[in-house]
Amino acid sequence: MLVDGKHYRTVWIEGSTVMMIDQPRLPHAFSIARLDHHTATAEAIQTMVVRGAGAIGATGAFGMAQAALEAPENGFHAYIEAAANTLSNTRPTAQNLFYGIDSVIRAIESEGDNLAAARQAAQAAAQAVADDDSACCEAIGKHGAVHIPDGGRVSTHCNAGWLAFVDWGSALSPIYVAHRAGKSVHVLVDETRPRSQGARLTAWELASEGVPHSVIADNATGHLMQRGEIDMVIVGSDRIAANGDVANKIGTYSSAVVAKQHGIPFYVAAPTTTIDKACPSGMDIPIEERSGNEVRYTWGWSDDGQFIRVRTTPETSGVRNPAFDVTPAELVKGIITEKGIIEATPAGIASVAR
Amino acid sequence: MLVDGKHYRTVWIEGSTVMMIDQPRLPHAFSIARLDHHTATAEAIQTMVVRGAGAIGATGAFGMAQAALEAPENGFHAYIEAAANTLSNTRPTAQNLFYGIDSVIRAIESEGDNLAAARQAAQAAAQAVADDDSACCEAIGKHGAVHIPDGGRVSTHCNAGWLAFVDWGSALSPIYVAHRAGKSVHVLVDETRPRSQGARLTAWELASEGVPHSVIADNATGHLMQRGEIDMVIVGSDRIAANGDVANKIGTYSSAVVAKQHGIPFYVAAPTTTIDKACPSGMDIPIEERSGNEVRYTWGWSDDGQFIRVRTTPETSGVRNPAFDVTPAELVKGIITEKGIIEATPAGIASVAR
Repeated sequence: MLVDGKHYRTVWIEGSTVMMIDQPRLPHAFSIARLDHHTATAEAIQTMVVRGAGAIGATGAFGMAQAALEAPENGFHAYIEAAANTLSNTRPTAQNLFYGIDSVIRAIESEGDNLAAARQAAQAAAQAVADDDSACCEAIGKHGAVHIPDGGRVSTHCNAGWLAFVDWGSALSPIYVAHRAGKSVHVLVDETRPRSQGARLTAWELASEGVPHSVIADNATGHLMQRGEIDMVIVGSDRIAANGDVANKIGTYSSAVVAKQHGIPFYVAAPTTTIDKACPSGMDIPIEERSGNEVRYTWGWSDDGQFIRVRTTPETSGVRNPAFDVTPAELVKGIITEKGIIEATPAGIASVAR
Repeated sequence: MLVDGKHYRTVWIEGSTVMMIDQPRLPHAFSIARLDHHTATAEAIQTMVVRGAGAIGATGAFGMAQAALEAPENGFHAYIEAAANTLSNTRPTAQNLFYGIDSVIRAIESEGDNLAAARQAAQAAAQAVADDDSACCEAIGKHGAVHIPDGGRVSTHCNAGWLAFVDWGSALSPIYVAHRAGKSVHVLVDETRPRSQGARLTAWELASEGVPHSVIADNATGHLMQRGEIDMVIVGSDRIAANGDVANKIGTYSSAVVAKQHGIPFYVAAPTTTIDKACPSGMDIPIEERSGNEVRYTWGWSDDGQFIRVRTTPETSGVRNPAFDVTPAELVKGIITEKGIIEATPAGIASVAR
């Protein structure tokens, strides 16, 4: 999407250098990290210079393409295997990472002992992972944009934008497609405490693309729904169960309940890779409790330009920090996938799940 | 209530010096502001060294008592009138402030030209305002505590504790009474962005009084309700309409909707002075939009002990900051007043309104 009028992806490769937007510095500074070796790319994944399922998958694939270019003729395959281990271990729960890495390994293996062909196949496979992610997200955008009315005021939560993928994003993609098609859209961006991805990343994405938006405290979403100032909700998802229940960033559930109360359509936008057919219902999804320091502190930029944390909570107070919640399928108006909009029902899920 | 094992009120008078807990420094530092002149007391109200309806009312009364001690024999009544103007103008929308000031003026006027008696009456009247506020809040606590089960897990929002009154508080008073009576209580304290009064003040109050509690992001309340980890909700109120609708800090409404969804009793605790009989319904209550900087920034303590702000939101992003919301009467299980628990209905309100 656009940054200062120029098109960027989250991650790409130039020669043997992986390039990525340095996300922890957003929105304060827009800069590109240049990673000249697959180990540097691995470190960038680990330290969350890049985050988000789709973006991590493409980065893993590009890291493997780098490794294929670096690997010596003697010991080529051992080098590839070691690189795959290094890259896999950076974020051991990221499904898309393994998919990206495996795609490149399969391409290399298909060339047997022709190392020149293997190197070329690795580049092509990595590029295909990134291009597929982008195309998938753009398709989500086209399917979803149809349902955004001209003049629509859309609420979203957390960052399910292009920064979390290679381009376009999931929840924000329909908004981008509608905006580029000339529809008037205003986005209500809730802050998304405790990590503030809405205020930091979603707001920055929308500002860069020129989409009108307002940042609000998470507490304000219900009030604006009650006063008729929100026409629809679109959020992303970390995992969708076989019955249509949706796990997403903490706070999604309350938004869905209040939206239902006011008859506001609540959509989930996600690639079909997000569906976990082996998970029968949302209540089977374990909810990660993250460090209490995320609640105790807020990270941001001080008036003198330092990225620091401030503490609001007494040192002696206990803290709870569930990172995700589950929205029951009956609160979801539809799931916007690259294959079209499906119902959040077992039949709907089965119709697109891989 | 207790601080380091010693009983404090929010504000009190010693001789002609008004003493108050310096609230903006909480929870980082507990210190007492000493105000030796009524103009200093007025400034403390204006700069929010003290905040909260009950606490401001008592502070205004004590400021008038100071003025009665300061006033010269020649021009006594003119001095009193000027002091009343100075104190009234500090927070021009605070009903309790005018009540506190007027109580002292009436006591002074009742003594005619006997200035010694007028000075004594002013002291007594100011003390009565503070004592009445404390007794009223303690009564709220006794009425409400009955409904807190042993082992109860209670959610609250913002700070409706003793720091907002003279002692005990409104929403937290039933919790204090139950805790002191030996019941096991655990309080879920939501942070209450954008001003973080839950994380800063409510958590500090509970820690000081020894009540077990956990601070959570505002986003986590709905999830914990869904998972059966909250047994009841008690919040305060800024204004209660004649039909039982309740205005309170932004975020209260969403909490009430999700509580209803899970059959969790949702109580409002407030003195009957909070009722505005002239306001037919909550939809007639104007919602103040405060400075967008409250959303753009978070105030807290840096690791090197400075009280500073950090910005999370892009400079170019728009912001909305409604400060209050309205919870419809039908979501309210009961209103806990000093006169007992009433239904949030026109009949219930009429039974206690002054």
